[in-house]
Amino acid sequence: MVIVLGPEATPDNIVAIVDLVNDAGGEAYVTRGVSRTIVGLVGDVERFENLNLRTLPGVHDVLRISAPYKLVSRQNHDSRTVVSVAGVPIGGDSVTLIAGPCAVETPDQTMEAARMAQAAGAALLRGGAFKPRSSPYAFQGLGEVGLKILADVRAETGLPIVTEVVDAADVDLVASYADMLQVGTRNMQNFALLQAVGAAGKPVMLKRGMSATIEEWLMAAEYIAQRGNLDIVLCERGIRTYEKATRNTLDISAVPVAQNLTHLPVIVDPSHSGGKRDLVLPLSRAAVAVGADGVIIDVHPHPETALCDGPQALVGSDLAELADLMDTLPALLGRTRTKGPVAAPAGV
Amino acid sequence: MVIVLGPEATPDNIVAIVDLVNDAGGEAYVTRGVSRTIVGLVGDVERFENLNLRTLPGVHDVLRISAPYKLVSRQNHDSRTVVSVAGVPIGGDSVTLIAGPCAVETPDQTMEAARMAQAAGAALLRGGAFKPRSSPYAFQGLGEVGLKILADVRAETGLPIVTEVVDAADVDLVASYADMLQVGTRNMQNFALLQAVGAAGKPVMLKRGMSATIEEWLMAAEYIAQRGNLDIVLCERGIRTYEKATRNTLDISAVPVAQNLTHLPVIVDPSHSGGKRDLVLPLSRAAVAVGADGVIIDVHPHPETALCDGPQALVGSDLAELADLMDTLPALLGRTRTKGPVAAPAGV
Amino acid sequence: MVIVLGPEATPDNIVAIVDLVNDAGGEAYVTRGVSRTIVGLVGDVERFENLNLRTLPGVHDVLRISAPYKLVSRQNHDSRTVVSVAGVPIGGDSVTLIAGPCAVETPDQTMEAARMAQAAGAALLRGGAFKPRSSPYAFQGLGEVGLKILADVRAETGLPIVTEVVDAADVDLVASYADMLQVGTRNMQNFALLQAVGAAGKPVMLKRGMSATIEEWLMAAEYIAQRGNLDIVLCERGIRTYEKATRNTLDISAVPVAQNLTHLPVIVDPSHSGGKRDLVLPLSRAAVAVGADGVIIDVHPHPETALCDGPQALVGSDLAELADLMDTLPALLGRTRTKGPVAAPAGV
Amino acid sequence: MVIVLGPEATPDNIVAIVDLVNDAGGEAYVTRGVSRTIVGLVGDVERFENLNLRTLPGVHDVLRISAPYKLVSRQNHDSRTVVSVAGVPIGGDSVTLIAGPCAVETPDQTMEAARMAQAAGAALLRGGAFKPRSSPYAFQGLGEVGLKILADVRAETGLPIVTEVVDAADVDLVASYADMLQVGTRNMQNFALLQAVGAAGKPVMLKRGMSATIEEWLMAAEYIAQRGNLDIVLCERGIRTYEKATRNTLDISAVPVAQNLTHLPVIVDPSHSGGKRDLVLPLSRAAVAVGADGVIIDVHPHPETALCDGPQALVGSDLAELADLMDTLPALLGRTRTKGPVAAPAGV
Repeated sequence: MVIVLGPEATPDNIVAIVDLVNDAGGEAYVTRGVSRTIVGLVGDVERFENLNLRTLPGVHDVLRISAPYKLVSRQNHDSRTVVSVAGVPIGGDSVTLIAGPCAVETPDQTMEAARMAQAAGAALLRGGAFKPRSSPYAFQGLGEVGLKILADVRAETGLPIVTEVVDAADVDLVASYADMLQVGTRNMQNFALLQAVGAAGKPVMLKRGMSATIEEWLMAAEYIAQRGNLDIVLCERGIRTYEKATRNTLDISAVPVAQNLTHLPVIVDPSHSGGKRDLVLPLSRAAVAVGADGVIIDVHPHPETALCDGPQALVGSDLAELADLMDTLPALLGRTRTKGPVAAPAGV
Repeated sequence: MVIVLGPEATPDNIVAIVDLVNDAGGEAYVTRGVSRTIVGLVGDVERFENLNLRTLPGVHDVLRISAPYKLVSRQNHDSRTVVSVAGVPIGGDSVTLIAGPCAVETPDQTMEAARMAQAAGAALLRGGAFKPRSSPYAFQGLGEVGLKILADVRAETGLPIVTEVVDAADVDLVASYADMLQVGTRNMQNFALLQAVGAAGKPVMLKRGMSATIEEWLMAAEYIAQRGNLDIVLCERGIRTYEKATRNTLDISAVPVAQNLTHLPVIVDPSHSGGKRDLVLPLSRAAVAVGADGVIIDVHPHPETALCDGPQALVGSDLAELADLMDTLPALLGRTRTKGPVAAPAGV
Repeated sequence: MVIVLGPEATPDNIVAIVDLVNDAGGEAYVTRGVSRTIVGLVGDVERFENLNLRTLPGVHDVLRISAPYKLVSRQNHDSRTVVSVAGVPIGGDSVTLIAGPCAVETPDQTMEAARMAQAAGAALLRGGAFKPRSSPYAFQGLGEVGLKILADVRAETGLPIVTEVVDAADVDLVASYADMLQVGTRNMQNFALLQAVGAAGKPVMLKRGMSATIEEWLMAAEYIAQRGNLDIVLCERGIRTYEKATRNTLDISAVPVAQNLTHLPVIVDPSHSGGKRDLVLPLSRAAVAVGADGVIIDVHPHPETALCDGPQALVGSDLAELADLMDTLPALLGRTRTKGPVAAPAGV
Repeated sequence: MVIVLGPEATPDNIVAIVDLVNDAGGEAYVTRGVSRTIVGLVGDVERFENLNLRTLPGVHDVLRISAPYKLVSRQNHDSRTVVSVAGVPIGGDSVTLIAGPCAVETPDQTMEAARMAQAAGAALLRGGAFKPRSSPYAFQGLGEVGLKILADVRAETGLPIVTEVVDAADVDLVASYADMLQVGTRNMQNFALLQAVGAAGKPVMLKRGMSATIEEWLMAAEYIAQRGNLDIVLCERGIRTYEKATRNTLDISAVPVAQNLTHLPVIVDPSHSGGKRDLVLPLSRAAVAVGADGVIIDVHPHPETALCDGPQALVGSDLAELADLMDTLPALLGRTRTKGPVAAPAGV
C-alpha cells in the first residue's frame, strides 16, 4: 500500500502517519521528493485499511495496488502521464522526436548534428557527455566539457537537452546542465543511480536493460518514482537474443505491453536496436505505428569518423524522409508531432 | 555456383553439364523442379568459370553467389518476387491480408471466420486442418475433413486457401485442396518436408523457426527453392526470448533485414507473436509500417470456445479497425491493399 | 488419465474399455504399441474414477497424472527406467559412453573411429548416415550406404549402433540396421517422425530442441511413448543463447531437472554443446558429475578432413583421458561405467 | 599496448613515458593503483615498438595484446593467478568453498549460517549487508549494521568475509569491514563501481552479468584491473534464457572458456544459477568437475523465514554431502580443497 502526500503535508503530518502505521504492526518508508512525499507501507493490508488513512491531514491518495510496482502502475491511474521537458511534452496526443549525436565530440559536430535534428523535426536534442563503454579503452565522453557544449548548442538552437548520467556522484553536475537525465541500459538496475536521479528534480528517460523483463523495467522506474519523481519516460532500445543480424532485437511489443501496465510514456530507440543506418527509418515507422510516444535517433554529420556508434547514425540525406514520416504517420493515428523550437537558418 | 536451366533443357543437356563439371574435378547436384531444373556445383569456382557454362544449350543463368543461400539471395536478382496464390499477389506494391481461424473446427465456424476475414479486407483465407501441437493430448486438427470444409468455404467465398502441412507424407493430399502450403515454425528445419513442398507445385509460406536465425530461415527457403519452387513467402512469427509478457517476441527488424537479403516477400504473423488479442492491431500496424508485404491474422467467431489459440484471435468488433488500417496505412507508404474477392452479403 | 494395458489384453477388452469411456461422456484414444497398448482418456476425470477401470480385464495400470506429459512422468513411476540397447543398458547404476564419428564417411574412417570409441570405453557406436544440415549444399550423409558401413563395423567390433533418422519415411529402413534410433534437435517437434519412431520397436534417443523448454522436450517424448514405446533416452545437447564463445550453451541443470520430472534416462552431448574439442573433456566431467546417465561424444581419426563438425571431434591423444574419466568419476558417485564388448587388438 | 610500472617508478619516470608517447602521436592513460601503475597506450602500435619502452626506468613490463581486454588476458601471462583473501587462496591447485547466508539478517542467523559453512568445509564466509533488489519494496539489507555483524562473526569463527557493495559511494565503508568485495550481476557494467572497487585495495569477486557475454565480463574485469587491482575472481552465476524450470541457466562452459582467455580464477554460484535447493549439490559437483576454482553457496539455518532467496539455501542436512563432495572430487582432479580456519565446537 502506498500513501501519496500533497505538497501541503507538514513534517508533523508525516510523523503522525508513521506512528499510526507502526502501532498497527507495519512499517512505513517515507520518501520525500521535490514535489510530493510518498509513504510506502509494508505489513498487513487489512489492518491498514482500518486506519482510514485517506482522512488524515496531508494525505492526497492511498493506493492499494497488486502490481509489484505501485506508483508507476496504471492501476488507479486513469489518465496517461505527459512528461514536460523544459516545456516540450512527451506523451499524450503527441509523438516526440528526439535526435542528436550519440556522443558529444566537438562544438562543431554537436552544432551540426543539432541542426540536422531540427531539420528532421526534433523537439529535443540528445547527446552523450558521459558514455558507458564496454571497454575501458574506448572513448568515455568529454564529461563536463561535453555538457558545456550541449548548453551552448541549446542556447543557439533552443532545443532542450537529454543526456546520460552514469554515476550517482555525477547526478547533480549533469542535472545542472541537462533538461532531462538519461539512465542507460547497463544502469537500469543501478539502484543508487536510480534513487539519485529520482531525487534530482529533473525528468528522467529510463532505457530498458538489454535483458530486463518489462516487469523489471517498471520496477526500476518505481525506484525513481519512490523518490517523488514521476516525470519518467520509458525507452525500449532492443533486447539481447541469439539473432546476429542486428545489434539487438527491437522488442516492438514492449510498447503496447508497457502502455497497458503503466501510465508513463514509452518511446523507442531504433538506432541502438538495429545498430544499422538502413534499419533506422523502417524501425521508426514501426515504432510510431505501434503507438510509441516518441523516438530517439542518432544523427551525425560525419558518421565515418564518429567516436561512437557511427554505423547506426542517420546522415543528412535521410532527414527529409524522417521529417516526412514524423509529419504524416502520427496524423494517421490521431496524433501530432510535438513541435520544437523552429530551426534558424544555418547561415544566420 | 548454381546453374538454372530453362524449361527447354533436355536430359542430354543436363548429362553434358554434369560430365563437364565432373571432368573439372567438381560435383554437380541436379534437382528437377516442376518448371525449371537447378544444378548446384560444389568445387573450385575458378575452374567452373573457365567452362563457359552460360553458353551451353538449355542454360538459363549461372549464378556465382557468395551467400550461403543462392537461389533465394537478392544477389544477382534485381527485382523483388511477387508470389501469386491462385491469382492473389503477395509482394510488390501490394500489402496482403490473410485471415482466418487458427484451426478448422466446424463448417459453421470456418464459414463465419471466413466472412470475418473478408469483412476485414482479407484476400486469402488461413485455417489449419493438420495442427502441430506440443502435446499429443491437444486437438490435432480435423485432417482431410478439415481440408474439405476449407474447400467448401472457398467455393462459397472465393477466398483461396492457405493451410499447414506437417508431414512429408501428407503433402500431396494437402496440395490437392490448398492454394498455398504452410510450413510451420516447428518444421522450419524438417528438411524432408521442405523438399516435399518444394516439389509440390504450389506456393509455400515458410514460417521462421522460433529460434532460427534469419540466415537459417533463408537456408530453409533454399531447400524449397532447390526443388525448383521459388514461389515462397517468408513469415516472421516471433522468436523465443526470456520475456514472459508476450507469447513470443516479434522480431520486427527481421522484415527489413530479410528483404535486404532475399528477393522473396516477407509477411508477419502478429497473432502468434504476441499471443494476445489486444496486441494484434498494434503489431499489425507496426508490421505494415516497417514494410512487410502482408500480415496473417487469427480471427474466430467465438474465441472463448476455440480449440486452438483462442486468446489471440480477433473478434467481430475488431474488424472495422483492421479494415481501416489496411486501407490507410499501405497508402501512406506508396502501396495498396491486395484486393480479394468481394464478400457476398452474409445472408445471400 | 492414461490406461496401460498388459500384453494379455484382447481386442474385445479394448473395445469394452472404449465403450465404457464413451458412455461416461469421455473420449478414448487407443495406441497399440509393440509390447503394450495405451488408452488415453480425455474428459471428466471424476467420472472416470467411478468406472473402476483398474478392475477391468487386460488393464495393467491406470494413471491419474497432473503433468502435461503422462507416460514419461515420474509421477506414479517409482523406479527409474533402464533402457536396453541390444543388451547395453542406459540408466540405473551405470554411466554409458557412446562415441563415434559425427558422420559416416568411409568404411576405414568409420572403423578407425569405432576403434577409438572402444579404446575410450564406449559401449555403443554413434555415427550418422542421414545428416540434417542447415544448408542444402552441405554433405547430407551417405544414406543406406552409410547404414551398411555401420552394420559392417558392428559385425567386427560388436558395438551396437545409434544412428539418426530424419524422415518418417525412412524409419523402417534405418530401423532395419540400427540398434537405437536418434531423433535430432531440429526434429524434436517433427511429430510425424516422433510417432514413426515410437512405432518402430527400437529404443530411441531424443535430443532436446535447441530452443525447447524441458517441458516441451518431455512432451515430445510423450509422443513417442504414446505409440507404446517407452525405451526413450533423453539427450541434452546445448541450447541457443546470445553467447557466441560456444556453439551452444550446455544447459547442465537440465539433467537433474529432467531426472526429477521423468523416469527416463538423461544423457549429455558435450561435443555439439561446446562445439570445440578442448571443451569436450571438461564438459564430459561436468555431465557425469551432475548425474547424467551417459555421454555421447564425437571422435574422428582425422578431424581436419571431416565432412561434418571436425572442430569438435576428439582425437587419439584425448582418448586416454576420456577413458580415465569414465573409469574414475562414476565410481565416486556410486556408479560404474557400462561395459561394452572388449576391443579386439587393432591389428587382429 | 599496456605498460606496467613497478613500485619503484617515480612521478618523473611516468611523465617521461607520457611525453615520449605523445611525441610519437599516441595517447597515454595513466592509472595509479595501490601497488602498481598502469599506462595504457592508444595509437600506432608500430611506432610504440620503436620507443624501446621496456628499457625505460620504472618499467616492469610492456604488453602487446590483441584481445580487447589486456591486463586480464592470458596472453603474455603464463601462470594462472592465485588471489589471496586474508590469507585464503582462490585459484591454483586448490578448490575453495565460500558459503554463508544470502543476506545478513540477525547476529544469531549469521553466526548459525557461518557454523554451517564451516561444517561444510568453507574457507570464506559470504553474506550480504547491501542487497540490490529488483523491487524497492523488498528487503534492502541491514547496511553497516550488517557489516558489523559480519565482523563479529569473523572474529569468532576466523572466516574472512566476502560481501557485496552496490554503490561507488559505499566502497570505502564496505572495504573497511570486508576481506573481499563482491560486485553483483546487476552491476557488472556499473563502471563507476568497477573503478571504485579497483582502487579500494581489496580483492574483488566479479559476478557475470545475467546477460553478459564472456568477453564483456572480461572487459568489466579490465576496468578493475586498470585501477591497479588484479586480485579479481570471476564468478559465473547463470545467464538469462527462455528456460523457466530454473531461475537462471548455469553456463557451465563459461568456466573452461574463461580460464582459456584469462589468468584470473573462475568460480561458480550454483545457488543463484538454479534457484532451487535440490539443484545446488548436483551443480556444485558439475562446477568442481568442469575445473572451477571454487563454489559459492547459500546456506541458511531457517530458509523458510529467510528474507532473501530462501528456496535456494542449503540446510543442515545437506552439509555432510557438500563436505564430502569438497573432500573427494577435487582430489580426483589433482586438486585439494582450500582449508579455512577450523570450526570451534558450536558450544564453546
